Amino acid sequence: MKALEQKIIKEGKVYGGDILKVDCFLNHRIDVEFLNEIGKEFYSIYKGNGINKILTIEASGIGIACVTALNFDPIVPAVFAKKSASKNISGDVYTSKVFSYTHGKTYDVMVAKEHLGSSDKVLIIDDFLAKGAALEALVDICDQAGAEVVGVGIVIEKAYQGGGSKLRQKGIRIESLAQIASMGKDGTIEFC
Amino acid sequence: MKALEQKIIKEGKVYGGDILKVDCFLNHRIDVEFLNEIGKEFYSIYKGNGINKILTIEASGIGIACVTALNFDPIVPAVFAKKSASKNISGDVYTSKVFSYTHGKTYDVMVAKEHLGSSDKVLIIDDFLAKGAALEALVDICDQAGAEVVGVGIVIEKAYQGGGSKLRQKGIRIESLAQIASMGKDGTIEFC
Repeated sequence: MKALEQKIIKEGKVYGGDILKVDCFLNHRIDVEFLNEIGKEFYSIYKGNGINKILTIEASGIGIACVTALNFDPIVPAVFAKKSASKNISGDVYTSKVFSYTHGKTYDVMVAKEHLGSSDKVLIIDDFLAKGAALEALVDICDQAGAEVVGVGIVIEKAYQGGGSKLRQKGIRIESLAQIASMGKDGTIEFC
Repeated sequence: MKALEQKIIKEGKVYGGDILKVDCFLNHRIDVEFLNEIGKEFYSIYKGNGINKILTIEASGIGIACVTALNFDPIVPAVFAKKSASKNISGDVYTSKVFSYTHGKTYDVMVAKEHLGSSDKVLIIDDFLAKGAALEALVDICDQAGAEVVGVGIVIEKAYQGGGSKLRQKGIRIESLAQIASMGKDGTIEFC
């Protein structure tokens, strides 16, 4: 998605050759008008595949998932996996473990069993794909639920970190709207 | 919003006379089609007030904020306050403290200074309003930024917990689409 690559170059900031900050349009301040274009793109890629649910993970995935769901015809529900237990989630849940390189710790993700099942044809949505830990957990949860993962929609894939190729080798369809081949310490970004 | 009250009665679950679970349509599984009606309602309430930004707090507020922003004409950006520091947020931030009754602890919320300022006319959006702790923190952050809080849009207000009336007395406009007067241990819900 050329417009996304241009936006990353124009508005993104690279730190230390590895951290890409896009909090000006994607994961702190959200450019909702642009997000709508992202949602249209995911729908155009995945329409006709019988998807009846979008699955994502809190927090940054939620806006992308909702706006993408809204672009589906018919509109589909979105479920976001939670990162910690609260009084508002209880009973039977599917859980999987994720090591977050961003936060430097392992956490559980969970989805209530009532919200995911064997009749679901799922599109998994997330903002970033790097080493693939969060995505693996979401796929694992779909497997536990007997739900079919039709595909994955990623806004920005750091292809050089290998998570995408590892999961594609397992047969998972992953469509990333921007794939970064490398980032330089001088702030340059090369797309695949 | 009558359709929302009906949905709460039909799909919500009351536990122990105080906890209302609406994770089947609002804050775990999201009924995005219905959320779009919520977004339309907020726009119809607040249009013509010059709102140029929506502010919410992670995680449950994000979907509501994005879908509401998408219903504005023109579409406005949404900013979500973060609950913890990460490698992806750095530099100058506005912070405020919140005691979460749901999680039983105090946490910081933060918004990067570059994303909120004195030219902003803000609509604050959240899923729940109970004692008002999160909302007070968001208003405090707007005050720190010199941003104008045009109003607040809440999906479900537990009016009996007093947060809404306390903040309205301070002159803040709060519009709640459903206001709960009381909940019974037998699961009954009375609206205002």
